[in-house]
Amino acid sequence: MEKPRILEVRQGILKKNDQLAGDLRGRFHNANICVIDLVSSPGAGKTAFLEETLRRLNEQGFKVAALVGDLATENDAKRLERSGVPVRQIETHGICHLEAEMIERNLEGWDLEELDFLFIENVGNLVCPSSYDLGEDARAVLHAVTEGEDKPLKYPTIFNSSDIAIITKIDLAEVCEFDREACYENIHAVRPGIPILETSGKKGIGFDEWFAYLKDLKKGVGSRAKAV
Amino acid sequence: MEKPRILEVRQGILKKNDQLAGDLRGRFHNANICVIDLVSSPGAGKTAFLEETLRRLNEQGFKVAALVGDLATENDAKRLERSGVPVRQIETHGICHLEAEMIERNLEGWDLEELDFLFIENVGNLVCPSSYDLGEDARAVLHAVTEGEDKPLKYPTIFNSSDIAIITKIDLAEVCEFDREACYENIHAVRPGIPILETSGKKGIGFDEWFAYLKDLKKGVGSRAKAV
Repeated sequence: MEKPRILEVRQGILKKNDQLAGDLRGRFHNANICVIDLVSSPGAGKTAFLEETLRRLNEQGFKVAALVGDLATENDAKRLERSGVPVRQIETHGICHLEAEMIERNLEGWDLEELDFLFIENVGNLVCPSSYDLGEDARAVLHAVTEGEDKPLKYPTIFNSSDIAIITKIDLAEVCEFDREACYENIHAVRPGIPILETSGKKGIGFDEWFAYLKDLKKGVGSRAKAV
Repeated sequence: MEKPRILEVRQGILKKNDQLAGDLRGRFHNANICVIDLVSSPGAGKTAFLEETLRRLNEQGFKVAALVGDLATENDAKRLERSGVPVRQIETHGICHLEAEMIERNLEGWDLEELDFLFIENVGNLVCPSSYDLGEDARAVLHAVTEGEDKPLKYPTIFNSSDIAIITKIDLAEVCEFDREACYENIHAVRPGIPILETSGKKGIGFDEWFAYLKDLKKGVGSRAKAV
């Protein structure tokens, strides 16, 4: 008896999340802000990558902000604040993913129309965040060379629900005997045609390509906002 | 209205899992088999570590077997079969953790009394597996030096519900600028006194200490079985 009941409750929650995410997406479009959700396993380097992203975009004159999800601690927000942009920590208190409601609640007091980009750093988890739309324009899945090339095949949903795959810690490729060809093949097997970038937050590699992607995405958001 | 309802359903599921795990634990004790659940984030090196563990214990004359959980693919079971011991893949089809019921179902046809050790490789996830007892004697949390030393603080439940912490990929410590002192401090902050091992599946480091731990654990299981 329990299985159909949990499925029903779960579907109810996902439906409610989707509705709220739809509302958020409308609000983001009206404000002409481009929103990116970063997902990955724990320790794939999301925070280092985001720190470098925020710092450089800020230097280039873009208005950026970030929401950072974690089960516990405010360490990431503290780290990211060094980039000089507004950052808020979302402590999920044991919940394994971010939900649209948490995003909405934590936007309070921010003037979205003044921002160009909002980055959301999801909880480190290659499974559960894939089911929760946050109203983002793009989901970026980060995949460290240290994790092994088989992860896209083992966690297909998070890869095939993403819009761009970002290989991180590329500076460790050689020492990890990273098999580039196998990695690309596996990513494209679960999500054909997805763009793939190779980056290192620590060594500052791959950010020009990342910013080209973001600026294209922003243009799309802009033209969509005009069309509304 | 939805929140109390999901909580109630969730508690029902956990309670049912705990009961089944309790039954499994009784069955394992009666069979005098020692059961270890390996948890970690995706890509922390569980499979490489387990492969080396199975191969060496097998060489030493122990009877070992393994159950391997993954959302998709049978790759890990295929890899582990090279060690020459019985291995079964549990495909969870999108579920982010193993449950006692999956363990029970996949033991069918195995004579537990003939085995010394059963290893369970959980789904790569630092959050959800922590809530599900599988009837194991010990939970081992693996933590790669490539993940950053802050993970115990950010995922406290999985660390404080574990019996031993195994640092993996120690051969990459230097190139990752691994801060050993911070790592130990953070693990002990969330789980005071937990034993910590430093290992590398690839380079075969730390297995003597790991086997000493396992043999002690097995002795405890043996004396408990006699007391039943």
